[in-house]
Amino acid sequence: MMKICIIGVGLIGGSFALGLKKSGKPANIVGFGRSAEKLAKAQQLGVIDDFSTDIKQALAGVDMVLIATPVNSFKSVLELIKPHIRAEVIIFDVGSTKTSIIKTAKQVFGNMPQNFIPAHPIAGKEQNGVEAADGALFSGKRVILTPTENANSQAIKTVSECWQSMGAKVEIMDDKTHDDLLAMTSHLPHILAFCLMNYLTDNKSGALDYAASGFKDFSRIASSDAQMWSDICISNTDEIIKHINGFRQSLDKLSSLIAAGKSEEIKQLFEGAKTARDDWLNE
Amino acid sequence: MMKICIIGVGLIGGSFALGLKKSGKPANIVGFGRSAEKLAKAQQLGVIDDFSTDIKQALAGVDMVLIATPVNSFKSVLELIKPHIRAEVIIFDVGSTKTSIIKTAKQVFGNMPQNFIPAHPIAGKEQNGVEAADGALFSGKRVILTPTENANSQAIKTVSECWQSMGAKVEIMDDKTHDDLLAMTSHLPHILAFCLMNYLTDNKSGALDYAASGFKDFSRIASSDAQMWSDICISNTDEIIKHINGFRQSLDKLSSLIAAGKSEEIKQLFEGAKTARDDWLNE
Repeated sequence: MMKICIIGVGLIGGSFALGLKKSGKPANIVGFGRSAEKLAKAQQLGVIDDFSTDIKQALAGVDMVLIATPVNSFKSVLELIKPHIRAEVIIFDVGSTKTSIIKTAKQVFGNMPQNFIPAHPIAGKEQNGVEAADGALFSGKRVILTPTENANSQAIKTVSECWQSMGAKVEIMDDKTHDDLLAMTSHLPHILAFCLMNYLTDNKSGALDYAASGFKDFSRIASSDAQMWSDICISNTDEIIKHINGFRQSLDKLSSLIAAGKSEEIKQLFEGAKTARDDWLNE
Repeated sequence: MMKICIIGVGLIGGSFALGLKKSGKPANIVGFGRSAEKLAKAQQLGVIDDFSTDIKQALAGVDMVLIATPVNSFKSVLELIKPHIRAEVIIFDVGSTKTSIIKTAKQVFGNMPQNFIPAHPIAGKEQNGVEAADGALFSGKRVILTPTENANSQAIKTVSECWQSMGAKVEIMDDKTHDDLLAMTSHLPHILAFCLMNYLTDNKSGALDYAASGFKDFSRIASSDAQMWSDICISNTDEIIKHINGFRQSLDKLSSLIAAGKSEEIKQLFEGAKTARDDWLNE
């Protein structure tokens, strides 16, 4: 039976564990973390079979290690596990940015381990912690793998099958393409939502009393975890800055059209946006 | 029995009519519009009691006129009804911007009619048309009245009672305050959502394939009616430009923090945003 150690049994790590159990794939899932209390809770909830706060013990005889801790903890986690894993052990992660993670792995291991397959499941919730873990979280969702050139094809296959077993759609691309795409479709919208909340509250307290349901949906992602999103900004800086600047140009263009009263051009832009979104939803 | 003529029996006009019927307030509701077909549909759906495409006929003997047409049609609508209404007839509207509407009314009537009570129900849907009309649309929602100084207090009372009868929370403020508030909480978010959709589709087709549920909610308001939002941009230009510029400053500030790798400051901004939103939701 495959033994998997999950480093960081929170929303994502816990959902992966539950998804694997749900899939019927026989696996012995061991949790590792700093807080024995939280790990005991995860075991109580049936998310993990066993746990340890001692890394050597947690990694004893494992076939796979899933790193599901915040991106900024990545270096210390790799340094922690390095002395205790054989070269055959498959390492994978769930980090929202991939280039920085590969860079860190190269720093810690000297080169990218052949059996380290970076992964990013495009799914989440605002809630955090193992209590919010959900075995169906990845069902029908995309999981992007960004293996490096030297990656072991068997390891890619094994990691893909784990995700597919819980209904995820696995896709493979290089890390730079991933980070560019996600900066556009995830990082930028989160930044705009956080930023608008800050602007409104700094600008006029009580303004939100006049916000309607559209605003509630628009700002939902501004309720995301601040630490995680700060980490993402730091680990995908170049792409994020590039797309903030690109967005700012679109906003400037629209702003000039509004200032000039170009109603027809404005309407066309809005129609384009509406069509793009409606088409996307109907796909 | 009070006779009300609704000019423009779409989502908002139709929802007002249904709300009034639901409230049990005895009223005879006549619809006016350009398309007899659409009006017949509204009557079929039980939204209006009667209709006419002849304005003189539609306004014969009315006590109140609700203007529920797009903001950019406002001038022509006022010119259309002017010859056919007595000074005692109460006029009210549902326009998303108020200063421009008062300005237009002054142009058409020479001065602001005492019985014209500008109103803005803060409620809506992405869908348009009378088919989407909903008698509960305004229940529990704010309706802002922006009467001018010369407004007839009895007219204010009557209009307030109409909205309150369908469960709306009526609030009175001046038109400039309204337009400033709504530019922040409604117009700016819509512009950001439209603009992000435009940026993503112009920048990389297919990028949306990697967007998750957070993006779906964030961009929902980008599916709003393009004509209506173009009109809003044109009729509240100064406030909208002011807040686009204010927002851009917040974005620039955040962008510099990201470029400088100031993770702690970024985290604090995001925490502030998260707290503001969570508090708002829990109010």
